[in-house]
Amino acid sequence: MGASCAGCRRLLWSRRPRLGWLTSFPVRAVGQRSTAAGPGAGCGPGSRRALHAARPGCQQVALTSERYGLQRLPFAHLTRSDMAFFERLLPGRVITDPEELKQFNVDWLKSVRGCSKLMLKPQTTAEVSQVLRYCYERNLAVNPQGGNTGLVGGSVPVFDEIILSTALMNRIISFDKVSGILVCQAGCILEKLNEYLEQQGFIVPLDLGAKGSCHIGGNVATNAGGLRLLRYGSLRGTVLGLEVVLPDGSALDCLASLRKDNTGYDLKQLFIGSEGTLGVITAVSILCPQKPKAVNLAFLGCQSFANVLETFTTCRAMLGEILSAYEFMDEKCMELVERYLKLSNPVTGSPFYVLIETSGSNSTHDEEKLNNFLEKTMTSGLVTDGTVATDDKKIKTLWSLRERITEALTHDGYVYKYDLSLPVAQLYELVTDMRARLGQGAKNVVGYGHLGDGNLHLNITAESYSHSLLDAIEPFVYEWTARHSGSISAEHGLGFKKKHFIHYSKPSQAILLMQRFKAMLDPKGILNPYKMLPSRP
Amino acid sequence: MGASCAGCRRLLWSRRPRLGWLTSFPVRAVGQRSTAAGPGAGCGPGSRRALHAARPGCQQVALTSERYGLQRLPFAHLTRSDMAFFERLLPGRVITDPEELKQFNVDWLKSVRGCSKLMLKPQTTAEVSQVLRYCYERNLAVNPQGGNTGLVGGSVPVFDEIILSTALMNRIISFDKVSGILVCQAGCILEKLNEYLEQQGFIVPLDLGAKGSCHIGGNVATNAGGLRLLRYGSLRGTVLGLEVVLPDGSALDCLASLRKDNTGYDLKQLFIGSEGTLGVITAVSILCPQKPKAVNLAFLGCQSFANVLETFTTCRAMLGEILSAYEFMDEKCMELVERYLKLSNPVTGSPFYVLIETSGSNSTHDEEKLNNFLEKTMTSGLVTDGTVATDDKKIKTLWSLRERITEALTHDGYVYKYDLSLPVAQLYELVTDMRARLGQGAKNVVGYGHLGDGNLHLNITAESYSHSLLDAIEPFVYEWTARHSGSISAEHGLGFKKKHFIHYSKPSQAILLMQRFKAMLDPKGILNPYKMLPSRP
Repeated sequence: MGASCAGCRRLLWSRRPRLGWLTSFPVRAVGQRSTAAGPGAGCGPGSRRALHAARPGCQQVALTSERYGLQRLPFAHLTRSDMAFFERLLPGRVITDPEELKQFNVDWLKSVRGCSKLMLKPQTTAEVSQVLRYCYERNLAVNPQGGNTGLVGGSVPVFDEIILSTALMNRIISFDKVSGILVCQAGCILEKLNEYLEQQGFIVPLDLGAKGSCHIGGNVATNAGGLRLLRYGSLRGTVLGLEVVLPDGSALDCLASLRKDNTGYDLKQLFIGSEGTLGVITAVSILCPQKPKAVNLAFLGCQSFANVLETFTTCRAMLGEILSAYEFMDEKCMELVERYLKLSNPVTGSPFYVLIETSGSNSTHDEEKLNNFLEKTMTSGLVTDGTVATDDKKIKTLWSLRERITEALTHDGYVYKYDLSLPVAQLYELVTDMRARLGQGAKNVVGYGHLGDGNLHLNITAESYSHSLLDAIEPFVYEWTARHSGSISAEHGLGFKKKHFIHYSKPSQAILLMQRFKAMLDPKGILNPYKMLPSRP
Repeated sequence: MGASCAGCRRLLWSRRPRLGWLTSFPVRAVGQRSTAAGPGAGCGPGSRRALHAARPGCQQVALTSERYGLQRLPFAHLTRSDMAFFERLLPGRVITDPEELKQFNVDWLKSVRGCSKLMLKPQTTAEVSQVLRYCYERNLAVNPQGGNTGLVGGSVPVFDEIILSTALMNRIISFDKVSGILVCQAGCILEKLNEYLEQQGFIVPLDLGAKGSCHIGGNVATNAGGLRLLRYGSLRGTVLGLEVVLPDGSALDCLASLRKDNTGYDLKQLFIGSEGTLGVITAVSILCPQKPKAVNLAFLGCQSFANVLETFTTCRAMLGEILSAYEFMDEKCMELVERYLKLSNPVTGSPFYVLIETSGSNSTHDEEKLNNFLEKTMTSGLVTDGTVATDDKKIKTLWSLRERITEALTHDGYVYKYDLSLPVAQLYELVTDMRARLGQGAKNVVGYGHLGDGNLHLNITAESYSHSLLDAIEPFVYEWTARHSGSISAEHGLGFKKKHFIHYSKPSQAILLMQRFKAMLDPKGILNPYKMLPSRP
């Protein structure tokens, strides 16, 4: 149903069309390239290589330490004898070539840059253990790195920290088809895991735009949310076990494969979302749902945010247990995706768009539920236009409109990125308030995100980074969020860029307790320093 | 479909019956009293009062300290000036009457007994804070207590610890119908919360037999699993926020009402399942699912455990997203429920029974899915007999057959209780192995539980407690579990009775780290002492 069909919509709906009929309408969004494993992400990049090729060189990014005027903490400096030790321990897996190191010193957004001179690529937990034991003794700072797809500067060094990469820790350890429990090393790429699981009739309970390059260990370390959270819940419920190497090199085996285990404190939870500051996750045990037999995607246009909200309430009631995603984006997002990525929007002319996914075990039932829902929302005018996809290729094409917004934004200039949890009713007010506040100071102010989870991605673009624009945005955005009892980081974490704003979402006693945990587990502070928590007073 | 209908089953099924037709068959299980709020539980009691009236007096239970020959730790003893302080702080809410205290000194199973002389009933977090601050300064030990429905002796004092009850902290703070997030005080009774939510079209994502008396704070403190975990996941995913008072009296406010919040370490997770040893939970924020529009219950008979397993696999595939419970019980369980509680089993003559619940948003779709599943499993002989219920009353009657097994067991004598996570395929072998091992030494050895979660409840009854029978059971049961990489406590926790067996499920580094957390948060060890963790070497 393109915009051109709007006139005959009411008639069509009164005929109670079957979904198969609906999908015979051409889905006009045709990506420029395959989007399955392609770059672009709601929460990060797809293929790193492609993006690096397409965008300005790493060297053009200011050094973080210089931009922010930071002082290096008194960690040891690498010596020849250190290098010799690492070469012996990880022959051929010690990277010192400055050219090769460049891309691992810069984050995907090209917003922060460190100057590490050494990257290590262990293959086993024992090797990670030996590396950390050595670094701990020598007081050498370490920056754990997975797919380097983080959006808050948590995954690259700030100064010369040693980069400890999980890239070669990509072995699937076991998968049990009866229980659906997967155990794998931390460096497995999310999309590869999903492909493996799909062959067994299962899926990873996590999906995000960066799937083509992010590592499962990094996902767990940042407690990634993504597109399936609405249906499968957070990693805190689905991650069943972790193996972690602590800063002093000791390995902690909490790699249980049990749905239920109440024997003592759940230590693994402390490492989920700790952004590599408390330990290096080396293996993950995760509960995977069955691959749904039927998936449908509806891409709809709404004339107001109030209609987006009411459509959500209606959809939750009518789609119930088969609802697996409810995403929204404003028309600015769609403009950028069309302009920079040449994707075409099959449903034009609406100020807001929603993307609704259903996943279920019976395609007839699911189509009937979806048809009933569409009929109701279109008849009532909540939804004014839309298209539906049931086959894999069309579904991926439609998803790319949402998933590649992050990528489109990077083409628009320097991106100020905010990832907020807010009460759904007020969620879009922040975007309009910000737009009014910045006026001509910003190039674009856009809002999109996981509405079903109360998660807004607010993005502001400008030709280049400027302190004055940043000052106009912050702390305003955090104060606004705190006033609405929201979170200043819903799923991206705090990393380097947000750590000083933690007090907008957490009381001082909580921050103090976090600092005590950090001090207990990492008394020398060698693991991912300058990140996540403000320094202790 | 009673046993008498077995002969005509094939014919009936070949007619592809509708569920409405199925339910016209009499459900022959008629409880002796209303089971909605009634006593008896898969994991604890219903109405404490009824049970205490029905069972032997508390005084007949041996003092824990004497039975186990324990030494009291050097905590302070209560003085008159302490009593005067508490009377001033909580006027009329200080219990010292020995008669009144009796039931709070003994656990529901009547297996452990303390000798506390004081119970305090704060109403606010500030009061809990003042109590703990005082006790911490005075070095007085404290036993937090919710509904006292725990099954491992974690909820009653071992010696003379002050009982800190959450009974008067039963206020619902807020409920948001858009997000489904409930915030309430810790002493709210689970069933009351559910009744409140049902009026708003929602439910608590947790259900267990003890619902009539357990407190939500206690549920969270023990990370209770229960009957809905298969569908709604663990409390680690659904609990969004906690307010906790630490042992030194400081309050920690992590009471967020956000589905996603990645700002710092998730401190609340440390308190979920910490069994009152790290802090007193005073308020809970929890994500509640919508009340399902359609619920169906099937109670089926299987001729072997292999068939129970295959029925589970079939059911997971065919019922998919509407499956909300898969429970199993052996024929011994049913015998006890029939003998002691006079409930009647509508499906007799099977060595195993399964209880399958579906919850969904469309009754026609759900019935069709269930009918297809039943036809397949009955035609193939996986299931040999069964009955189905769709209306509320019949559903409750059928559920009581499963929920009241715990209660029936207490009538059979002293109960040795084990709550294990095991690979589902091997789950029942432990029951047969134990039966063979104990021979005439035990009265009954029964197995039942949450098969969908890999959770076996193994229960052994005898006329009375005996050291020799215990020695025959333990450590055998723990060694067996460890050999199969299981957990020696799936959902009950460790409490007093299992703390020395933690090493069967956790490595020494993990236990050491837990002890360090305990020492950090509670350096004097005043909070729920003698519980959960073995003493530090």
